[in-house]
Amino acid sequence: MPRYRLLIEYHGGPFQGWQKLPGVPTIQGTLEDAAARLDGAPVNVFGAGRTDSGVHATGQVAHMDLQIDRGRKVADAMNFHLRPHPIAVLKAEEVRDDYHARFNATQRHYRYVISNRRADLALDRGLAWRVASKLSAEKMHEAAQALTGTHDFTTFRDSDCQALTPVKTLNAITVSREGDRVIITCRAQSFIHRQVRSMVGSLVEVGRGKQSVGWIAEILAAADRTQCGPIAPAEGLYLTHVDYD
Amino acid sequence: MPRYRLLIEYHGGPFQGWQKLPGVPTIQGTLEDAAARLDGAPVNVFGAGRTDSGVHATGQVAHMDLQIDRGRKVADAMNFHLRPHPIAVLKAEEVRDDYHARFNATQRHYRYVISNRRADLALDRGLAWRVASKLSAEKMHEAAQALTGTHDFTTFRDSDCQALTPVKTLNAITVSREGDRVIITCRAQSFIHRQVRSMVGSLVEVGRGKQSVGWIAEILAAADRTQCGPIAPAEGLYLTHVDYD
Repeated sequence: MPRYRLLIEYHGGPFQGWQKLPGVPTIQGTLEDAAARLDGAPVNVFGAGRTDSGVHATGQVAHMDLQIDRGRKVADAMNFHLRPHPIAVLKAEEVRDDYHARFNATQRHYRYVISNRRADLALDRGLAWRVASKLSAEKMHEAAQALTGTHDFTTFRDSDCQALTPVKTLNAITVSREGDRVIITCRAQSFIHRQVRSMVGSLVEVGRGKQSVGWIAEILAAADRTQCGPIAPAEGLYLTHVDYD
Repeated sequence: MPRYRLLIEYHGGPFQGWQKLPGVPTIQGTLEDAAARLDGAPVNVFGAGRTDSGVHATGQVAHMDLQIDRGRKVADAMNFHLRPHPIAVLKAEEVRDDYHARFNATQRHYRYVISNRRADLALDRGLAWRVASKLSAEKMHEAAQALTGTHDFTTFRDSDCQALTPVKTLNAITVSREGDRVIITCRAQSFIHRQVRSMVGSLVEVGRGKQSVGWIAEILAAADRTQCGPIAPAEGLYLTHVDYD
């Protein structure tokens, strides 16, 4: 029973997140349906990151076991069965049967895309968050550095987060400007629910000058959800990469 | 009666091209409807490039005359009336009343985006042409140089082209690779109908090794439409910039 590791891209818009739920469209559910059609039997697909409703991925990683060894045909066959859903298997490779996409992952990388302009989005609609007020990416980057390291992230934790602890280690976070885009990247072994979107929403308050650079450190130290800025929308967020040893 | 110059972005997908046609959704028609709601009277909108059905723009230029001087509010007001269509006015500025977006344009810039990968497109769907065979951007670039200068472009001319002559001057064309994308850019004072998509489709035949680098010069010299490669789809094409003196 060969185990395959999948590298997956998807548009989160039509899905209610990664995790399968009966009767609603999810990424995991759609992948399992495609794999079942391919393999002729039910298949479980395990993902590295359980992305939220509307969140995209350019580099989600998952694994699954098939009854039949299909060698190098797995990616093409999965893509055939995934049509017309906006989910694509970029790569599939056979891995050892003790490989686990979620438990073996050492780091998840996320990217958040802000379109910093007044005009509505035409081409990037659903693929970025439009923020009309001029943002200072420099101030956002400076403020964000307070978030790196090990902290109680309660301020940036969604109320229905099921993680055992709000203490997480953020390995890095950067904010930079590329033309009229402001890009936030961050990476950690794991995140609590809505942590990235909560951090981005608060950083935007700094970038637009409503809050000082030091405010992010203050609200982090407060460990108080009510002090968080507005949560950034899902459509700007991408799971871009997952690291393994 | 102030004249405004508009810088416009649009997703060509839902439209049957730029040029207004009764009863069908077009970019020009949608802009004129929005301007009429803004101005309370019929408005004509003149574009620099009459993009084809499905073709996108990041830098289309147009002009229009309004009854009422709205100063700096024109872009925001147009965007309000354009919702929910994927058309955005990036900039509006008052210009002299002898300015003409089409007749004063000295050069149009186009960009064609190929996603050179096996997997179906999830995030770029409708925004790029997926070509599964590995392309040599270097060979495509070399072959494309035969197209620069003044030529009879009959080979790359759509049968329903209404231009008076197939003789055009291509100022520059480049092909380059950016990761798994192959990007073609070109610029000319004007193009004949489907010229860019015809050139791109033929260049892809060279890039995938089906034709030699010298083949582009041969089919150009033949001035014979039947020798053209397959026409590249509209969804990869963007009008990116229009130059004025």
